[in-house]
Amino acid sequence: MPDHLTITNATIACMDASEDGYGLIRDAALRVQGERIDWVGPMADLGDTSAEAQVIDVGGRLVTPGLIDCHTHIVHGGNRAREFEMRLEGASYEEVARAGGGIVSTVTATRGADEDLLLAQALSRADALIAEGVTTIEIKSGYGLDIETELKMLRVARAVGEARPVRVVTSFLGAHAVPKGADADAYIDEVCLPALEAAHAEGLVDAVDAFCEGIAFDTAQIARVFDQAVALGLPVKLHAEQLSNIGGTRLAARYGALSADHVEYADEADARALAEAGSVAVLLPGAFYTLHETQKPPVAAFRAHGVPMAVATDWNPGSSPMGSVLLAMNMACTLFGLTPAEALAGTTHHAAQALGLYDRGEIAPGMRADLAIWDVEEPAELSYRIGVNPLYKRIFGGRA
Amino acid sequence: MPDHLTITNATIACMDASEDGYGLIRDAALRVQGERIDWVGPMADLGDTSAEAQVIDVGGRLVTPGLIDCHTHIVHGGNRAREFEMRLEGASYEEVARAGGGIVSTVTATRGADEDLLLAQALSRADALIAEGVTTIEIKSGYGLDIETELKMLRVARAVGEARPVRVVTSFLGAHAVPKGADADAYIDEVCLPALEAAHAEGLVDAVDAFCEGIAFDTAQIARVFDQAVALGLPVKLHAEQLSNIGGTRLAARYGALSADHVEYADEADARALAEAGSVAVLLPGAFYTLHETQKPPVAAFRAHGVPMAVATDWNPGSSPMGSVLLAMNMACTLFGLTPAEALAGTTHHAAQALGLYDRGEIAPGMRADLAIWDVEEPAELSYRIGVNPLYKRIFGGRA
Ligand SMILES: [Zn+2]
Ligand SMILES: [Zn+2]
Repeated sequence: MPDHLTITNATIACMDASEDGYGLIRDAALRVQGERIDWVGPMADLGDTSAEAQVIDVGGRLVTPGLIDCHTHIVHGGNRAREFEMRLEGASYEEVARAGGGIVSTVTATRGADEDLLLAQALSRADALIAEGVTTIEIKSGYGLDIETELKMLRVARAVGEARPVRVVTSFLGAHAVPKGADADAYIDEVCLPALEAAHAEGLVDAVDAFCEGIAFDTAQIARVFDQAVALGLPVKLHAEQLSNIGGTRLAARYGALSADHVEYADEADARALAEAGSVAVLLPGAFYTLHETQKPPVAAFRAHGVPMAVATDWNPGSSPMGSVLLAMNMACTLFGLTPAEALAGTTHHAAQALGLYDRGEIAPGMRADLAIWDVEEPAELSYRIGVNPLYKRIFGGRA
Repeated sequence: MPDHLTITNATIACMDASEDGYGLIRDAALRVQGERIDWVGPMADLGDTSAEAQVIDVGGRLVTPGLIDCHTHIVHGGNRAREFEMRLEGASYEEVARAGGGIVSTVTATRGADEDLLLAQALSRADALIAEGVTTIEIKSGYGLDIETELKMLRVARAVGEARPVRVVTSFLGAHAVPKGADADAYIDEVCLPALEAAHAEGLVDAVDAFCEGIAFDTAQIARVFDQAVALGLPVKLHAEQLSNIGGTRLAARYGALSADHVEYADEADARALAEAGSVAVLLPGAFYTLHETQKPPVAAFRAHGVPMAVATDWNPGSSPMGSVLLAMNMACTLFGLTPAEALAGTTHHAAQALGLYDRGEIAPGMRADLAIWDVEEPAELSYRIGVNPLYKRIFGGRA
């Protein structure tokens, strides 16, 4: 393991909130010491590198921060391809449900899978993200809906981060769905809160998430989960305003949430609340696309109020079986009207902020040396192409 | 080079127009002799393989015909990322045009690039397709709009097929756009027809294509190009009814076209004409998605009249910078309502038909052994996931 690494002849998108949106430096170089970035600047200021151990001349290629997928459900059993197919063959939601489809099928498969199987499947998904320059992945629980399986999912998520050179951040999502036949309030008291306490005691929880929607939990139920998160000293985030506006975003803002996610139905007041709370709006165009939604998130209001926007895959087996951060960026531009600079900030700087991580997502001295080197000339190319992966090299904590 | 190859323990989607749409055989095996499939059937009927030189046990994985991308423009110079970015930053079409954007920029870049550069860029695109199991790629000219560059593009297309284990089929698309300042009729007479004749004389043309649209050429102009194709003994195909209905599809049908492509604005009468002519409707959801179109192709009418539907990337630098056939399949399902079986037929059996190739796109004795082996259990998974490539192994003409 070399202590030093120097990258030369690069175009560097620092993503440091510069006026051009990219913080672009052309004819640039970058020095890494250990796991951290030591210096970044023009080639002209680099000085002599002839005595240096490891110099990578990237031949004019683009260097960005490693990508961050700040919203995924990649630990889950099974897949829902048959359900996708049945719907396209004309089956009604009822017929799909009778055939065992919907989230119930994922809960059954996740409960039935042992940790080894869940890990093998999660690793193949993590590997797909890593192959496109991802260096940090958030992974949620939420397909157990019982104490044991929620903990199992989080242990598997932690194991992904141990098995691969990638930082995994976990979110406890016990309040994801009401189990079939259960009472929502009783579920919160008897399963969700005890599961959160047990998972936290085992060190498995980095943040607490929930799904606020008519088909899931209301704001009063989620407030009880968030109260416990506060008591345990854990930050919160929320699936909010995806299919309707029932006040989830404002609830999240009241708790100083790291992020409110989906937010298609958020309004001007919600944008103001997020801005005041310093919360990130996480846009998930894969779910919007898959569910044929038409209500777009209020991007203009987020811009006007200065709400940072992140972009993520929401990789899950039902509403967003999407395994590409680059494609999420393209969809954020094409479907939601983000600029390519906003899309890239959404998977670097703002994605880090949505996870409460302030040591990554930017290229600057002191930041982690998590980097992606791309076979492109301009940063807009990362959002412009559809289903193409131009990754040249990935560096995680200073290691190529 | 082994003469024999046997694949065991497979689920095989033969794509031979069976009633289930897939021609699925479970617990199946497949024998290849030379470049061709020799036998396919249940494992139970395979007999002893202990003396065979090359047996691949695929462990229950799915085997399909190699994928066929039957509509691409992957030979082109430059990219249009800056134009994509300008539009998202709010620039008008006029501002983009003033900045040198639009098809003109691709024509300029393609004219300016030498064959080596064009080939290097085309190969990187072909490699992306090959990496997801593509074994046949159609490539069009059409960014030269002068005789020399149209021929250069077709030579580069042929060179792609020589440099990689993939079959390249060329289409001459001289009538793609009217060069700036030119008269459309004069362009047809003075450039397009002579270029076609010269390209044919050099053996560079497998089919003749054109763009029938208000912004391109009308049916009378295209009929003159098609008449020459007929005189030269070349099949025709047409970009038709993408943005409006001006009769292109019926023109194509009158000429017994291999395919009519895009066809969002085709109607019931057009579907009937295609069915009678035996032409394929090639659906290109990447362009529909990128251009924010809302008019969907008449899938129900195509089904009712028995028009075979193919699906392709339309990979081009402007309206569809999409480099994934699997993603085109997902979009064909999600945006156009195709079933996963129709989408897979659209990139195998029907894609072969759209190219006039009858020795591939199906798994049956006598067909070419162009195969894709996938790390999935069910064929619907190929369309279900978004931006994920589960290719396990690819076989081209019997060679792994
Ligand atoms: Zn989610
Ligand atoms: Zn085209």
